[in-house]
Amino acid sequence: MFKSIVLHTAVPVALLGMVTAAVADEGQWQPHQLPQLKSELKRIGITMPAEKLADLTRHPMSAIVSLGGCSASFVSPDGLVVTNHHCAYGAIQRNSTPEKNYIINGFLAKNRADELPGGPNTLVYVTEKVENVTDRVLKGLSPSMSGRERHELVASRIKSLIAECETDKSVRCSVPAFHRGLEYYRIKQLMIRDVRLVHAPSDRIGNFGGDIDNYEWPRQTGDYAFLRAYVGKDGRPADPSPDNVPYKSKDFLVVSSEGLKNGDPILLAGYPGRTSRYKLPSEIRFARDVDFPAKVASITADLSVISAATMGNPAWNVRYASVDKSLNNVLKKTQGLLDGFARKDIAAIKDVQDAEFRAWHKQNGNGSKNLLSELDSVIAQDMAASRQEAAWLEATHSDLLKSARTLYRLALERQKPDAQREAGYQERDLSFIKARLTRLEQSFVPQVDEARWGAALARYARIDAKLRPQGLDALLPAANALPAMYKATELEETAKRLAWIGKDPEAFRKSNDPFIQLAVRLHDTGMALENRRNDIDGNLERVIPQYMSAVIAWKKSQGKPVYPDANSTLRVTYGTVSPYSPRDGLVKGPFTTVEGIVEKATNKDPFIAPAPLLDAIKGKRYGVFKDPVLGSVPVNFLSSADTTGGNSGSAVMNKRGELVGLNFDSTYESITKDWYFDSAITRAIHVDIRYMLWVMKEVDGAHNLLKEMTIKYPKK
Amino acid sequence: MFKSIVLHTAVPVALLGMVTAAVADEGQWQPHQLPQLKSELKRIGITMPAEKLADLTRHPMSAIVSLGGCSASFVSPDGLVVTNHHCAYGAIQRNSTPEKNYIINGFLAKNRADELPGGPNTLVYVTEKVENVTDRVLKGLSPSMSGRERHELVASRIKSLIAECETDKSVRCSVPAFHRGLEYYRIKQLMIRDVRLVHAPSDRIGNFGGDIDNYEWPRQTGDYAFLRAYVGKDGRPADPSPDNVPYKSKDFLVVSSEGLKNGDPILLAGYPGRTSRYKLPSEIRFARDVDFPAKVASITADLSVISAATMGNPAWNVRYASVDKSLNNVLKKTQGLLDGFARKDIAAIKDVQDAEFRAWHKQNGNGSKNLLSELDSVIAQDMAASRQEAAWLEATHSDLLKSARTLYRLALERQKPDAQREAGYQERDLSFIKARLTRLEQSFVPQVDEARWGAALARYARIDAKLRPQGLDALLPAANALPAMYKATELEETAKRLAWIGKDPEAFRKSNDPFIQLAVRLHDTGMALENRRNDIDGNLERVIPQYMSAVIAWKKSQGKPVYPDANSTLRVTYGTVSPYSPRDGLVKGPFTTVEGIVEKATNKDPFIAPAPLLDAIKGKRYGVFKDPVLGSVPVNFLSSADTTGGNSGSAVMNKRGELVGLNFDSTYESITKDWYFDSAITRAIHVDIRYMLWVMKEVDGAHNLLKEMTIKYPKK
Repeated sequence: MFKSIVLHTAVPVALLGMVTAAVADEGQWQPHQLPQLKSELKRIGITMPAEKLADLTRHPMSAIVSLGGCSASFVSPDGLVVTNHHCAYGAIQRNSTPEKNYIINGFLAKNRADELPGGPNTLVYVTEKVENVTDRVLKGLSPSMSGRERHELVASRIKSLIAECETDKSVRCSVPAFHRGLEYYRIKQLMIRDVRLVHAPSDRIGNFGGDIDNYEWPRQTGDYAFLRAYVGKDGRPADPSPDNVPYKSKDFLVVSSEGLKNGDPILLAGYPGRTSRYKLPSEIRFARDVDFPAKVASITADLSVISAATMGNPAWNVRYASVDKSLNNVLKKTQGLLDGFARKDIAAIKDVQDAEFRAWHKQNGNGSKNLLSELDSVIAQDMAASRQEAAWLEATHSDLLKSARTLYRLALERQKPDAQREAGYQERDLSFIKARLTRLEQSFVPQVDEARWGAALARYARIDAKLRPQGLDALLPAANALPAMYKATELEETAKRLAWIGKDPEAFRKSNDPFIQLAVRLHDTGMALENRRNDIDGNLERVIPQYMSAVIAWKKSQGKPVYPDANSTLRVTYGTVSPYSPRDGLVKGPFTTVEGIVEKATNKDPFIAPAPLLDAIKGKRYGVFKDPVLGSVPVNFLSSADTTGGNSGSAVMNKRGELVGLNFDSTYESITKDWYFDSAITRAIHVDIRYMLWVMKEVDGAHNLLKEMTIKYPKK
Repeated sequence: MFKSIVLHTAVPVALLGMVTAAVADEGQWQPHQLPQLKSELKRIGITMPAEKLADLTRHPMSAIVSLGGCSASFVSPDGLVVTNHHCAYGAIQRNSTPEKNYIINGFLAKNRADELPGGPNTLVYVTEKVENVTDRVLKGLSPSMSGRERHELVASRIKSLIAECETDKSVRCSVPAFHRGLEYYRIKQLMIRDVRLVHAPSDRIGNFGGDIDNYEWPRQTGDYAFLRAYVGKDGRPADPSPDNVPYKSKDFLVVSSEGLKNGDPILLAGYPGRTSRYKLPSEIRFARDVDFPAKVASITADLSVISAATMGNPAWNVRYASVDKSLNNVLKKTQGLLDGFARKDIAAIKDVQDAEFRAWHKQNGNGSKNLLSELDSVIAQDMAASRQEAAWLEATHSDLLKSARTLYRLALERQKPDAQREAGYQERDLSFIKARLTRLEQSFVPQVDEARWGAALARYARIDAKLRPQGLDALLPAANALPAMYKATELEETAKRLAWIGKDPEAFRKSNDPFIQLAVRLHDTGMALENRRNDIDGNLERVIPQYMSAVIAWKKSQGKPVYPDANSTLRVTYGTVSPYSPRDGLVKGPFTTVEGIVEKATNKDPFIAPAPLLDAIKGKRYGVFKDPVLGSVPVNFLSSADTTGGNSGSAVMNKRGELVGLNFDSTYESITKDWYFDSAITRAIHVDIRYMLWVMKEVDGAHNLLKEMTIKYPKK
């Protein structure tokens, strides 16, 4: 199909839309849904049977793992894991010192003994079992329950299901809702907690282009790194120990350096985080007109406060570098959504779909006459509550206050039996809470926190009084009270912060620490908001599944399967290597080459390329990694696969299920895909396996890893 | 050839270079050279015989005309001429009033009586005869002559050749040098001086994108307009008169609306102005490191002076709008050259070519041993002189002073017999001088001129004293003298300016007008510079032809023909419709579509699209003009043809010589082509005939013209 357009390179958006719509590629499918898509997979050229992809215990799905927020895959029988450089960044950073700067110089363990501890936040989750537990979660729920009652009962059943599953600390279970409560699956994952850093290129390769190129194309980023999962001698996860041995995974991916070309099919498997594809037009308008503009304004203001407060102090700058990076990332994403909404009237498109659905539903929606009006009403409540929640976030925008609130809540929850505690405050969560409260020291300076909170309180004061949570104003400190609070508190010391864990609520109530005091004082208002949220969520969880089941019936009547919104569970998407036209007369992708690195290498951060890399390019030492069409080594490529945050590090596989790249980003025009998948312009950005292998061979000399992996080289 | 790349849309610069180098398309060929390129033309798919293209008296070359600075072509047997909107702009502007704003509303003469006078600057030149007069220009020149003597003797012979040719005022002759003096051709052109405006679309079509899109792609500009040439009843050019009749041209171009697609061959015929393709590496370095940076700094400063001086005065703003536009155009072009030189080390490429040539010359350059050292020495003098000339331009940067100097020089020249006068000051030039001195009133305000000159004098004062013309400092007014000079002068009044024509030099010497006084005072210094320039030019004209003839012999030894640098004479270039990759991972072109207008139409100048145009696009009323591949009406397209300034309005023809578009611009990356033709990135921008015809039909209702032209429509 592509040939006919690409021959005539002018690809007007409309035409490209038409054609790529034909080649799919919307859908983050639950693996068990893939057999429904058999003919689609076959049509784009996937030769691996759909049934095989549906089986988590078989190749290739058994090789796909989660790092908690990122995706990855096994690439050797000895627990070698490949993921993105940015997903392994924490492990690289914690092992780096000014003397051994693995961030700038990269790192390569020449043998297993040299592999470095990834630290407590570097975990590998292997999905072992997925069970449909919908019945157990939903059975016998009374329609007369309030939203909050319903929500709390469901939460409590989920906690039981998790407790029943988590027999020991090698296993982590979860019961995520699909279609916001139409179905629940219990997912049992092996949690490997001794994960070591094996290899990472310099961040001048792994993060070439940095924030400037984030969400951009053309892109030339070698965003890959290798970790290794270690377990006890019994083969079960164990605390980090020199006695541990490499994890023998059920399976691993074979690497193919044969490469892809434009139009080739790909499969992509990973753990996409969250999408909002089934939102109503009213929700899109709320996001577009209210929520996102406020978020952009707030983050922009916060970023300039951080910049002013850290200016001239390099040490503070470093502390806030990651905060800054992550805020900028959210800002770019949110602004990208707004730009996308401005470019294309997605609400209007959804209006048409919504009207079609409502018309169908009027004819076919037996017994659920009030469903749509009820849905509209609950969503209106949801939007109203979210404005108050946004105001609350501004009012409490201090890392110290957040720590104090976490600690007080933990003390309160610990009064209850574990099973009845709020999710996130159970025994199983304690190590994560501690890690979070400890990690704060790396990205926190009291003076900067004070400036940020002061500015946020001023923003809060400018919010329409009707949109602020009731009674909150009176509880908040005056702006001129902040200096004294920061002076008096001891929470900025990590040890003192952690010392509050285990104390009872009474100790908090008696404390003189102004942040602890404020946390206690704010508790009821916070709980009122939370209870209201639970009530609304309970209603949403009741109504939306009915709505979704009607939508699914409607789609089924058209012969179309429906995938659930992303919820950090394992999904498979497919597509083709393909360029796109962001504007009339312009075509982007689908490949970049190493020559693009030379073009961009200004020797100014983030466009500093390592000299050995530049030398290898200038010497054209491309060897087997040279693409015959491009005449060079491909670096990144675009595909039409359906991805989102969380898919970072996802395996990109060829039609036979061999690893040919890693997903790491998507283009700026694609950002709106979280709300609406526009196949004409939505493209995911992948690092080409040939670039990885070439850099490992020519630049980093990672011959041990090249040997360890099973690599298929092109036929001569 | 293109298929293989474009299929795989990633077109790395290197690869694209390789491939497009193969499809040519360097060369602004003299028509008589085309038979040498027969096999090339055939290879790219041109079916029209090269011999036919070489014959200026036959189709299609007999339909190609010059407007003096722009190119155009006849498209009906009744003198209908098509060219660019920006080439007809003067004619549109002079007929526009606030009530009848043809700039914004466009203009269409529904019948011949409604056609509007184009004014004295709208002229059509039909090339009637081209003769090689090299022998008559160069015969018997003594090698012992000084450069200046040689230059003046050559100039005087050229004047005789012109005088002999210009039998009456319907004919304009010129004797341009080719290869800077290797050959001279006498070109006889019919000069039609009653040229009327027939049709122009709104400048919101004809100049859509304005200065922002100038030199840019993607582009959606309908840069076309129609004029008609009128002559006396005897068929000879005549002064404008209602009695005149449409000129019956020997021939006209048939229009083909069948359209082109990617990879199709094109021919382009027109009058390219000036290129510098045979410059030595030292000249490129001088331009890159000295001349162009100074030019950019000077124009940038001048533009901000104009902006400050006209601020808050809309009438003054209007006066300087065209000055501003043209300075910005030069600035963008010069900056584009610098950017291009920075992107690619053209000097280094030329070093290699130069070394190859010098090595060949050492072996084969019989009898011209000192040629290359002499060349280097003359060019060094040329560069030194040009720095003084640049300083002189800063010192005399006043429109009033320039007028005064023109007038005084004219008075001095008129003391001599006409044949001995300096070119540009002969009787044949008088009407042009008058027109220029009159036109000044449209783009001049004394206060602004004073501010510009004051700032330029300050810039002059900062130039290294060694680089200023000898003795000039003492002749220039002090900065604080300018207000009094502008107060005292009467030259700002058009009538008073023109009244100086015909006065004798003595009257100038006795004048109290401070600008006339300064023009008299500066004369000797100006002449010293001019004489030095003539001496250098004389030497260049002696040495460079020897150099070029060696280069031609060298190229001939490789089987390659050599085209001369552009010199505003009729040239033919050919190429293919083709996209290009300005950066790794990005492909531009080759087509844009009307959908791109909707994308860009922000309703803010220069992106205001007329409502009827937007309606026609939204209604998709594309009819026969819809491209089957693009699914829309193409607006602009790119080709690899070799063009430069002066090629504006050039006919773009298909393989059969039928009109399929008009050239009007080139891409930003192409700007360096005036110095070095890099086939990978050099692309000319054309308006697609289908867009023109579609707008004429659907938006402007120009049915009379559609009927008058011979249009081939696509077969059903």
